[in-house]
Amino acid sequence: MGLLQEDRLFPVDEGTRALARSLYATVKDLPIISPHGHTDPRWFAENEPFPDPAQLFVTPDHYVFRMLHSQGIPLEAMGVPRADGGPTETDGRKIWRLFASNFHLFRGTPSRLWLDHAFSEVFGVNERLSAETADAAYDQIADCLARPEFRPRALFERFGIEAIATTESALDDLRWHRMIRESGWQGRVVTAYRPDAVVDPEFAGFAENVAQLGQLTGEDTATWEGYLAAHRKRRSYFKEFGATSSDHGHATARTEDLPQAEAAALFARALTGACTAEEADAFRGQMLTEMARMSLEDGLVLQIHPGSFRNHSRPVLDRFGRDKGFDIPTRTDYVRALRPLLSAVGGDPRLTVIVFTLDETAYARELAPLAGVYPALKLGPAWWFHDSPEGMRRFREMTTETAGFYNTVGFNDDTRAFCSIPARHDVARRVDCAFLATLVATGRLDAEEAPEVAHDLAYRLAKEAYRL
Amino acid sequence: MGLLQEDRLFPVDEGTRALARSLYATVKDLPIISPHGHTDPRWFAENEPFPDPAQLFVTPDHYVFRMLHSQGIPLEAMGVPRADGGPTETDGRKIWRLFASNFHLFRGTPSRLWLDHAFSEVFGVNERLSAETADAAYDQIADCLARPEFRPRALFERFGIEAIATTESALDDLRWHRMIRESGWQGRVVTAYRPDAVVDPEFAGFAENVAQLGQLTGEDTATWEGYLAAHRKRRSYFKEFGATSSDHGHATARTEDLPQAEAAALFARALTGACTAEEADAFRGQMLTEMARMSLEDGLVLQIHPGSFRNHSRPVLDRFGRDKGFDIPTRTDYVRALRPLLSAVGGDPRLTVIVFTLDETAYARELAPLAGVYPALKLGPAWWFHDSPEGMRRFREMTTETAGFYNTVGFNDDTRAFCSIPARHDVARRVDCAFLATLVATGRLDAEEAPEVAHDLAYRLAKEAYRL
Amino acid sequence: MGLLQEDRLFPVDEGTRALARSLYATVKDLPIISPHGHTDPRWFAENEPFPDPAQLFVTPDHYVFRMLHSQGIPLEAMGVPRADGGPTETDGRKIWRLFASNFHLFRGTPSRLWLDHAFSEVFGVNERLSAETADAAYDQIADCLARPEFRPRALFERFGIEAIATTESALDDLRWHRMIRESGWQGRVVTAYRPDAVVDPEFAGFAENVAQLGQLTGEDTATWEGYLAAHRKRRSYFKEFGATSSDHGHATARTEDLPQAEAAALFARALTGACTAEEADAFRGQMLTEMARMSLEDGLVLQIHPGSFRNHSRPVLDRFGRDKGFDIPTRTDYVRALRPLLSAVGGDPRLTVIVFTLDETAYARELAPLAGVYPALKLGPAWWFHDSPEGMRRFREMTTETAGFYNTVGFNDDTRAFCSIPARHDVARRVDCAFLATLVATGRLDAEEAPEVAHDLAYRLAKEAYRL
Repeated sequence: MGLLQEDRLFPVDEGTRALARSLYATVKDLPIISPHGHTDPRWFAENEPFPDPAQLFVTPDHYVFRMLHSQGIPLEAMGVPRADGGPTETDGRKIWRLFASNFHLFRGTPSRLWLDHAFSEVFGVNERLSAETADAAYDQIADCLARPEFRPRALFERFGIEAIATTESALDDLRWHRMIRESGWQGRVVTAYRPDAVVDPEFAGFAENVAQLGQLTGEDTATWEGYLAAHRKRRSYFKEFGATSSDHGHATARTEDLPQAEAAALFARALTGACTAEEADAFRGQMLTEMARMSLEDGLVLQIHPGSFRNHSRPVLDRFGRDKGFDIPTRTDYVRALRPLLSAVGGDPRLTVIVFTLDETAYARELAPLAGVYPALKLGPAWWFHDSPEGMRRFREMTTETAGFYNTVGFNDDTRAFCSIPARHDVARRVDCAFLATLVATGRLDAEEAPEVAHDLAYRLAKEAYRL
Repeated sequence: MGLLQEDRLFPVDEGTRALARSLYATVKDLPIISPHGHTDPRWFAENEPFPDPAQLFVTPDHYVFRMLHSQGIPLEAMGVPRADGGPTETDGRKIWRLFASNFHLFRGTPSRLWLDHAFSEVFGVNERLSAETADAAYDQIADCLARPEFRPRALFERFGIEAIATTESALDDLRWHRMIRESGWQGRVVTAYRPDAVVDPEFAGFAENVAQLGQLTGEDTATWEGYLAAHRKRRSYFKEFGATSSDHGHATARTEDLPQAEAAALFARALTGACTAEEADAFRGQMLTEMARMSLEDGLVLQIHPGSFRNHSRPVLDRFGRDKGFDIPTRTDYVRALRPLLSAVGGDPRLTVIVFTLDETAYARELAPLAGVYPALKLGPAWWFHDSPEGMRRFREMTTETAGFYNTVGFNDDTRAFCSIPARHDVARRVDCAFLATLVATGRLDAEEAPEVAHDLAYRLAKEAYRL
Repeated sequence: MGLLQEDRLFPVDEGTRALARSLYATVKDLPIISPHGHTDPRWFAENEPFPDPAQLFVTPDHYVFRMLHSQGIPLEAMGVPRADGGPTETDGRKIWRLFASNFHLFRGTPSRLWLDHAFSEVFGVNERLSAETADAAYDQIADCLARPEFRPRALFERFGIEAIATTESALDDLRWHRMIRESGWQGRVVTAYRPDAVVDPEFAGFAENVAQLGQLTGEDTATWEGYLAAHRKRRSYFKEFGATSSDHGHATARTEDLPQAEAAALFARALTGACTAEEADAFRGQMLTEMARMSLEDGLVLQIHPGSFRNHSRPVLDRFGRDKGFDIPTRTDYVRALRPLLSAVGGDPRLTVIVFTLDETAYARELAPLAGVYPALKLGPAWWFHDSPEGMRRFREMTTETAGFYNTVGFNDDTRAFCSIPARHDVARRVDCAFLATLVATGRLDAEEAPEVAHDLAYRLAKEAYRL
């Protein structure tokens, strides 16, 4: 017996399970398209061994350390770095034992599925992690990590990744992407254009960032026209390193389509730091529409994923900084928020705008009806907290009837956790095959049509939507 | 093999499926009560043949053309008329081929179920629509349409419709309903009172409309009392043509119960066109309560279905006008919004107020608790985008535990698509039987009780709630 | 045949049902921990017989009389007392017959499950209630109630209740709890601290209530410091009678963490009755954080259950007073609302804050992400209208993936209906076992792990979270 049940995530009814199993057989070995994620390009550039098991699985994964923290374990004990550089646990084995002895906390969670998949399929660990098995698992994984076939590029190839997108700031020099390209290695690692630092007036150092964007592009970013031109040039630079998309994570889905003179005035105020919160919000919204217009010129796909209340705990932010598992979803409106952008460019089928949500109530009510009519709009997959069997099932159940399958874009893993990538795509493929099998078993889809849809959801839609 | 699987939409578990199948057998041939819809009374008045297949299935059905449009097909190519009268496709066969070659877009949608049902059961087309089968299907349907047994009245009878309600503006002369009555045909086609044009201060030509209402009724609609009296007379006129309900589709569920002097002053401002948006909203809310009071006098059922953001795309509205698939649901509050009306008349069991929602989050949270206690309030069925297998299942799962079955009103098809009526009622009957079978299989309902409930949901509740 | 199907609420698939059945066998006879409820301590203090069947099952149970009322039956006919003391039905048998002849209204509701369970398991009534069986059931239950083994203490023991919490106002003298303690009876009935009357500036008689709190505790409650000290003393008094928790049911989840001087000023304004609605709301929010700080000192668990719009119908409130089934859930925000409290004390693992919701949309979006990271925060079970098979299933499906099982606290029955307590816990145990069986059958939990989780959900988590 191993950690993984062969028929996991398939329907329990035997006949429907058999349908799901046979569909899954046709897609399980398809290459992985990972068009939106946060792996570190430096891994593939330098191709150094990953550090110890705790550094691979615990310390950097906020899904993991937030669950342990929720039961009272201090972040320091898991080696999470402090903002002030103060001491935190550095003994990988000690962190690992703490993790292992609390592994029961992950029962019923997707983290458990991902971790078991990586332990078993990547590292050959086949006993359930616990206080008792902690050391053996640690040793086995540590042994593996020392071997060449567990270096980043080798794993990339073993995972069957056809293409992966990382995400870089508009101000990033893309040195690691350059190093990958110059290395001659054939793995396809592309960047994505993430301009928060230069489109959000409330971002730390906004005016300096915009000035730096000017230096990088040779444009006069003190003017609205120069600023837009700088974006165009920078997007073009990102495209040289394979970028096919831009990525925008604002607090709300607000878009604007202001007259250019008004937008220019708003930009001028933003540069002086005199923007009100409302004006900053309007400016971010305006920039989404500007980015969409640039997309019509240069073909980059526009990704919008709003709705996270960042850094919810003030003490944790003060002590540990950003991205410590305290980003909490909020209710998000899309109907009024997306209207300016959609009225401006949403009717153009050359444009692809992909919207994600953390508010599942918008699936059936707002997003499926919008994606089911606007040529430019597509729905991103179940995401972040909803990147899970139940979350993916709800996504299909609540969007398919109104948007169909062909206004969705396959799966994104959106992860920093490299070893979880095959597991996440496997979960998505299984859940989608379970959904399709249920449609077939209930007369809503022909048995002959289902394999094509399964292939589309597992591979083709992501590849085509992201132009990879 | 045909297009329709015999056990479609039943539970996949064999035992539960058998229960559902036997329940369904008891209701599948019951007459259709269609108490809320948008078929054209002219069809039944003139009884002319329907035009070509594209004019029947594609061009007028916004479910269909919005899905094709979402993939970049211009509305013109599907023959959707332009507001400026400019050219659009008129070749039915060409439109049909476009539709057929994109039929895969409807996989997993209720449109697919309805279309396949109509193709197969009404027109005997038994091959899946595709580019290859397009012409054969077109020819077969076109042949049928030329025959007398496919004229509107013949189909009405063949569909087993016991009663159908159309919906007409308060200013409509009901000529087609008069013509039906005078024809001697026995089909029961009734109207419903839809007074948007004369209760919404923001409706185009509101003051003129109100003046016209005065002319039609001989009342002085320049005064609040005269205006209310005109409504009473007009409702009475609609009742002569079988109306048993009024129908109200405001943007929100807001109701008001203002002192009469205040309502009269608001009406006076509305007539001058000087209302603010807030005042217009309050006036619409006040009129819902006034209509409820009239219902207590004349017995018409009051239907409220709020929550649609109409004509979301400005360019599409400009080019093609209203009702082009760009009406998008929004978050809707019911608890505070309905309180004035419910506090005024909600305790009176002689009144029936039926509320629909496009915001499913209100089912378990707001609407079931309200309908589960107020004598006058009933829940309309899953509606519009939610008129689908998953939508209907969610409706039952989220309302039954708190409101029971007997505060719901059976099924409404709410459709313009005449040939989809049997399909829609069939889907509703199957989904309800599947739900009841699951309750029986899980010990929540006795096997002996289920057939009575199935009959109630398929037939009795709609007939009684709508007094048909 | 009886009223209860042996495998009720288990999955319909045979294999999964067998898993659920065997899990359930391990928990069905565990003692009942009822840490949050509204039974009357006087029952256990005096141990008098319960009155007639109607007084036991109909008149005091708002789940029951609201459903009958929703179909037009006046509250008077069910014996619900009028605020003005006017006449209502007093003939128990007549009320019972009305109830019995409308028993079909409860089809598909949890009330039906609870009632059938109590009829069958407590009173040996094994025929479905109806007009025909009404008298026989009435007689049988009335006979039982006259016997000593149906007195409150005997039922308490027969039900296997290990501990039950009632809820008393901060101003209550706890005389019944004292009488229980002095009686020498060993049943564990504890109180809980409910301070609405003295923390809500909008509560009737707030200033007098605060003055009374001062008298009860010997503190000067005219000052902020004295007022806080009085709370501390009163909590301590409640702890003498077993209290392990405080209980807070505000309209919203708002919390505040104001500087003490500002809080004191707000309190002073509240005492004068000069608070605005906004200030009253802020004061209630501040008091939640103050209570949390006191919990850090004295160990009481803090329970927050916001989101009910109380007494929705004005006419019913006027005629019958509060708590007549007209409390309706509303949309509730938690992310911003809880932030001040959580930033202040949410990181302290010594504190337990249990949050309930009537807005299920918050489960996956807000509450699971919050409880899945803050050490102090736990999720209360599906509650009130959601204390039902579908409600409990949704709770597990929407919270487990992000919060896991160990940030939840088992089951609360939250009921006044004493005879429904075993039924409610039985439903919860069955639904949780069904959920766990499904996880096992789909490879998301090991068969060997499931019994431990089942035991945790049925018993241990409630006992530990509530420190009982």
